[in-house]
Amino acid sequence: MNEKYVPTGISGVDEILAGKGIPKGHSILVSGGPGSGKTTFAIQFLYIGATKHNESGIYVTLDEEPNDIKKNMQKYGWDLTKLEEEKKLKFINVSPVRIAPSETGLIQIGMKEFRLIKLLEAIKQGIKEVNAKRVVVDPITIFTLQYPNDIERIYAMRDLLRDLRQLDTTNIMISELKGTGWEREHQFEEYLTQGVILLRTFLNNGRITRVFQAEKMRGLPIDNQPRPYDISSSGIEVYHEAVVYK
Amino acid sequence: MNEKYVPTGISGVDEILAGKGIPKGHSILVSGGPGSGKTTFAIQFLYIGATKHNESGIYVTLDEEPNDIKKNMQKYGWDLTKLEEEKKLKFINVSPVRIAPSETGLIQIGMKEFRLIKLLEAIKQGIKEVNAKRVVVDPITIFTLQYPNDIERIYAMRDLLRDLRQLDTTNIMISELKGTGWEREHQFEEYLTQGVILLRTFLNNGRITRVFQAEKMRGLPIDNQPRPYDISSSGIEVYHEAVVYK
Amino acid sequence: MNEKYVPTGISGVDEILAGKGIPKGHSILVSGGPGSGKTTFAIQFLYIGATKHNESGIYVTLDEEPNDIKKNMQKYGWDLTKLEEEKKLKFINVSPVRIAPSETGLIQIGMKEFRLIKLLEAIKQGIKEVNAKRVVVDPITIFTLQYPNDIERIYAMRDLLRDLRQLDTTNIMISELKGTGWEREHQFEEYLTQGVILLRTFLNNGRITRVFQAEKMRGLPIDNQPRPYDISSSGIEVYHEAVVYK
Amino acid sequence: MNEKYVPTGISGVDEILAGKGIPKGHSILVSGGPGSGKTTFAIQFLYIGATKHNESGIYVTLDEEPNDIKKNMQKYGWDLTKLEEEKKLKFINVSPVRIAPSETGLIQIGMKEFRLIKLLEAIKQGIKEVNAKRVVVDPITIFTLQYPNDIERIYAMRDLLRDLRQLDTTNIMISELKGTGWEREHQFEEYLTQGVILLRTFLNNGRITRVFQAEKMRGLPIDNQPRPYDISSSGIEVYHEAVVYK
Amino acid sequence: MNEKYVPTGISGVDEILAGKGIPKGHSILVSGGPGSGKTTFAIQFLYIGATKHNESGIYVTLDEEPNDIKKNMQKYGWDLTKLEEEKKLKFINVSPVRIAPSETGLIQIGMKEFRLIKLLEAIKQGIKEVNAKRVVVDPITIFTLQYPNDIERIYAMRDLLRDLRQLDTTNIMISELKGTGWEREHQFEEYLTQGVILLRTFLNNGRITRVFQAEKMRGLPIDNQPRPYDISSSGIEVYHEAVVYK
Amino acid sequence: MNEKYVPTGISGVDEILAGKGIPKGHSILVSGGPGSGKTTFAIQFLYIGATKHNESGIYVTLDEEPNDIKKNMQKYGWDLTKLEEEKKLKFINVSPVRIAPSETGLIQIGMKEFRLIKLLEAIKQGIKEVNAKRVVVDPITIFTLQYPNDIERIYAMRDLLRDLRQLDTTNIMISELKGTGWEREHQFEEYLTQGVILLRTFLNNGRITRVFQAEKMRGLPIDNQPRPYDISSSGIEVYHEAVVYK
Repeated sequence: MNEKYVPTGISGVDEILAGKGIPKGHSILVSGGPGSGKTTFAIQFLYIGATKHNESGIYVTLDEEPNDIKKNMQKYGWDLTKLEEEKKLKFINVSPVRIAPSETGLIQIGMKEFRLIKLLEAIKQGIKEVNAKRVVVDPITIFTLQYPNDIERIYAMRDLLRDLRQLDTTNIMISELKGTGWEREHQFEEYLTQGVILLRTFLNNGRITRVFQAEKMRGLPIDNQPRPYDISSSGIEVYHEAVVYK
Repeated sequence: MNEKYVPTGISGVDEILAGKGIPKGHSILVSGGPGSGKTTFAIQFLYIGATKHNESGIYVTLDEEPNDIKKNMQKYGWDLTKLEEEKKLKFINVSPVRIAPSETGLIQIGMKEFRLIKLLEAIKQGIKEVNAKRVVVDPITIFTLQYPNDIERIYAMRDLLRDLRQLDTTNIMISELKGTGWEREHQFEEYLTQGVILLRTFLNNGRITRVFQAEKMRGLPIDNQPRPYDISSSGIEVYHEAVVYK
Repeated sequence: MNEKYVPTGISGVDEILAGKGIPKGHSILVSGGPGSGKTTFAIQFLYIGATKHNESGIYVTLDEEPNDIKKNMQKYGWDLTKLEEEKKLKFINVSPVRIAPSETGLIQIGMKEFRLIKLLEAIKQGIKEVNAKRVVVDPITIFTLQYPNDIERIYAMRDLLRDLRQLDTTNIMISELKGTGWEREHQFEEYLTQGVILLRTFLNNGRITRVFQAEKMRGLPIDNQPRPYDISSSGIEVYHEAVVYK
Repeated sequence: MNEKYVPTGISGVDEILAGKGIPKGHSILVSGGPGSGKTTFAIQFLYIGATKHNESGIYVTLDEEPNDIKKNMQKYGWDLTKLEEEKKLKFINVSPVRIAPSETGLIQIGMKEFRLIKLLEAIKQGIKEVNAKRVVVDPITIFTLQYPNDIERIYAMRDLLRDLRQLDTTNIMISELKGTGWEREHQFEEYLTQGVILLRTFLNNGRITRVFQAEKMRGLPIDNQPRPYDISSSGIEVYHEAVVYK
Repeated sequence: MNEKYVPTGISGVDEILAGKGIPKGHSILVSGGPGSGKTTFAIQFLYIGATKHNESGIYVTLDEEPNDIKKNMQKYGWDLTKLEEEKKLKFINVSPVRIAPSETGLIQIGMKEFRLIKLLEAIKQGIKEVNAKRVVVDPITIFTLQYPNDIERIYAMRDLLRDLRQLDTTNIMISELKGTGWEREHQFEEYLTQGVILLRTFLNNGRITRVFQAEKMRGLPIDNQPRPYDISSSGIEVYHEAVVYK
Repeated sequence: MNEKYVPTGISGVDEILAGKGIPKGHSILVSGGPGSGKTTFAIQFLYIGATKHNESGIYVTLDEEPNDIKKNMQKYGWDLTKLEEEKKLKFINVSPVRIAPSETGLIQIGMKEFRLIKLLEAIKQGIKEVNAKRVVVDPITIFTLQYPNDIERIYAMRDLLRDLRQLDTTNIMISELKGTGWEREHQFEEYLTQGVILLRTFLNNGRITRVFQAEKMRGLPIDNQPRPYDISSSGIEVYHEAVVYK
């Protein structure tokens, strides 16, 4: 295994990433619409890391509850609870909880404002507990939206990324696409992260087509063409040699 | 009956939802334009639950008056008053009422501001009274619009969804689509709910076509293609095998 | 005559409304651009009510002066003054008047701000004077624009509609379309009223075509296809069987 | 001459206006882009009134100086100075003048803010001086822009129109189109005035085409089709039988 | 030479302007995107005035430094320094200079705010020094942007134009186009100036084409069709008989 | 070597820039989307300067850390560390650092606000240390975003450019494109800098194509046509004779 790259193990993705994966230590953005499989992509990244590459991972959720994520992932046959028991996976719930009965195995931050310091402390503690090499934050949108304007959001995001950079983990930041069109405004996060993967749907010859695109991956000569993908019973599958538009 | 899924019973819909229905305990968004049949869809969901699956339901209205909803639904031959008498259906009117002569059988909140706590208390009391398993909130837009900015709206919506999650009911949140185009901005609710169904109309070969689309349904491998639907004398009918664009 | 529906009597319109008309007691929105015939539509609704169905009506104007409306309608051969004399029609001018020499037969509210209470009092008094069954408010835009933000406008509009609902009249709210395109943002009034009729113009094969569309009519299975219409010497005529786009 | 209508006398325009012209006493909006001939249209309306129908007119300018207007109109061979001397035409300059050396024959209001009362006084005095039957205000945009928000602008415009209505003159309000597209947002003035004429340019088969359209004219069955027009050496000429798009 | 018109002398431009040029004493807007040749157009206008028509000119720069302009114009073989020495051309730098070491031959206003009075004084002094007949202000955008809202900007621009009108010079105001599309919002300056020339680029049959368009020129029957142009080694050349779109 | 121009040495670029390069002393904007190769372009400009033209350079980073940039550039075989040791290249990190353990060879400004003076001091000191002739600032967006409105941003950017102009270096300002469409709003920086190069991607015949365009280059007759480019193992390569759209 090449030490400088972290293979995603997701069907077709590493082929697009120069046959290698994500450069080790980088933070990449996975951005998509509702139902595009962002969470599936991220869990799959952690699951394969834990089961095939002996790399532990943490999943920092700012929205959905860990139990719901685990239940929804059952359809792929991934036993996440077992991974938790083996200390190969850890869910960290930093979403706001008003009444705060803490659950076992979950770090909870019982307040609405969980600005940078709180989020980083939760991540660092989680990494230490399972010796994590892979980190997911889902969705980063909830974090940045707390800041009152663009420049504050940019600084907060950059500070987060800079601190994560010190930890030497490889990180996926999930973001929510604002609109459905091919032409769009870039999100500022696309400029700050070291890689960008887009999961979108377009109407193509009368049918909705799921379209994967590696927009950016610093340090790697990637394939930036749009490629069709599916969400099958074994998770995300990217058809890295297929063409979307004919 | 599969205990993990709640069949909608609406023609063509469960077929699209992997042959199963809505995952039990989930909150899904039903979003559409004026006249798209959102209320019909939601009432049909409760009516079928009450008459075919022995599951009671509550209908929380933030806009239209219960008596008007009942009258408008008569064209489908659904006897909602009978269901109310049998304690299988309950309307809860949480729309603002300036002068507040309460009607029998209706919980009324006589004030313009009915923020989270009030709404939740009304829902919980309604669920307890009829032992409801199915909940409709129509429209959620009125609730979120009270908050002054996006981050407040997101937190309020998430808190509502999180509390509903504890109640183990299966919930439909009705939302009002902002525009008429195929390309559009996503509503933040689409990211927070566990499923999204879109009821839209498009001009297609010179005719208005009603288009149903299951955009997202966590935990289920759904058909996300656009499908034509009608509002007939028996309610919503989705042609789950038909193609919209040829 | 079916007691549950109020026929508009306008050529082609009742055919589109399930052969019946507007459900009695409902408020519907008639929305169109400049020169689309909104006022003609509304006056025709009152004129036919008064002359064919023995139902009196009131016309609440927030913009144009009653005398101008009457003069402009002369081209259709409708003798509105006679109807006024017979107490079958009443104009109520609630537009702001700085110097207030009241005219006979007109209720005048001599101030710029005529918020909900004032508007409702004027409507109620007008209804009482002629025992009106049909009400027109033209344009509702002037009323809602007084409120400082969306949520206030929504509440004001809903309160107005709710109070009108108690009066059991059948009401047309005229609204001004913001833009000219087929794809557009919905107006919030479209969600609050019980029916929506759109009067628009589109460039179609090099010619401007007038297009009627019943977007929504609660309680009725309507034809929601776009249909061509004209403004002829006898008023609005909708070609309910014709196709706009071929 | 039909007393109820004021013929514009502009080639092709009265034909489009049901063969008659503008209903007497009405205010119509003439809206167009830069270089569309709005001023030419308005001056032509006054010139023909004065020379062919013995109706005096006033030209209220909020932007360009009267001397410049007169000079620019020389290309059409219209001797406006002679009309001024014959008391058949009067220019009224209500544009802001910081240092106020008044010119002979011109009413000047030497301040930046010339709200409703000032504008009306200037108009009334001008009408009295030449016994005017036709009035032009150019551009109305400068007047309404002084008010801080939409509702204030609407009230100011309506108050102006209402007062003009009392004077029984026939009025042209010139407005500046915001954009160049066929699809556009309506200006609120289009709803308030009793008629709307659009003077636009579109790229049509590789050439810029000037397009005249009578969008609205209360009380008259008009031709609302787009028609080509030119600005020739004799002023505006509308080809009322020609088709723009083939 | 016709005394009422100022020929630009730029290849193809006077042909488009009715064979004459810019009406003497008028201010026209030259608006274009980055790299469209706005400065070249304006300098060429002054250069030809000075060398062919014995008319001196001043170039008021609000952005670029005079030395840079002179250097950039060398590629056209125009010796601007010689013209300066002959008192036929004068650069006036009114851009903000924090530390203000004044250069010989340049009037400098060493402050960030150079509102109307300052700008006018600089222009008047410059005109007096070289007895200028032609004036360029580049770009006017910097001047108007200082004002906090639209109505203030409109008044400031109009006051500037009105004062320039008194000086009887012929003036080019350079403005920066906001966007790249054919359909666009008009800039308010287009309504205030007496002429508008657009310098744009469009993608046409796979190639970028430079497109000249005389949108407006008061007092002149102009050709308003889009015409291709180039920036060659002798400056701007407009192909006044060529067609852009075929 | 022509002393008045600074060759970029990047394959195909100097050919497009009239066979010469960037005019010496000018500041040009290089603007592109995420993953478009902006940093590669700028580093290549410095690398070729240092290795082929004996011109030292500085790279002022407002976002990414120097070590990351160096690592990402390894794929091109450029030994930047060696250049640093030879005093031919210097990285200057002016991005905000909260905890400030300074690294050897790096100037660090440990505060969030690094307005004009700070940025200029850092640049000047860097230029002095390595006697730099080429300067890169990446991205300029972070600098201008600190200012609260457009006019402040314009002034700040112009002051920066004006001071850089005194230093006689040739400068690349990297900016982040806001959107993905061909039609777009111009950034104000495009008007202030002396040259603009756009690095974009478009969907062309079903494939993403990278498109280079020299939009503006003062003082040079450039080729402004869109040209395809690649990011290969030797950096940016522009196919200056190829056509993007056929």
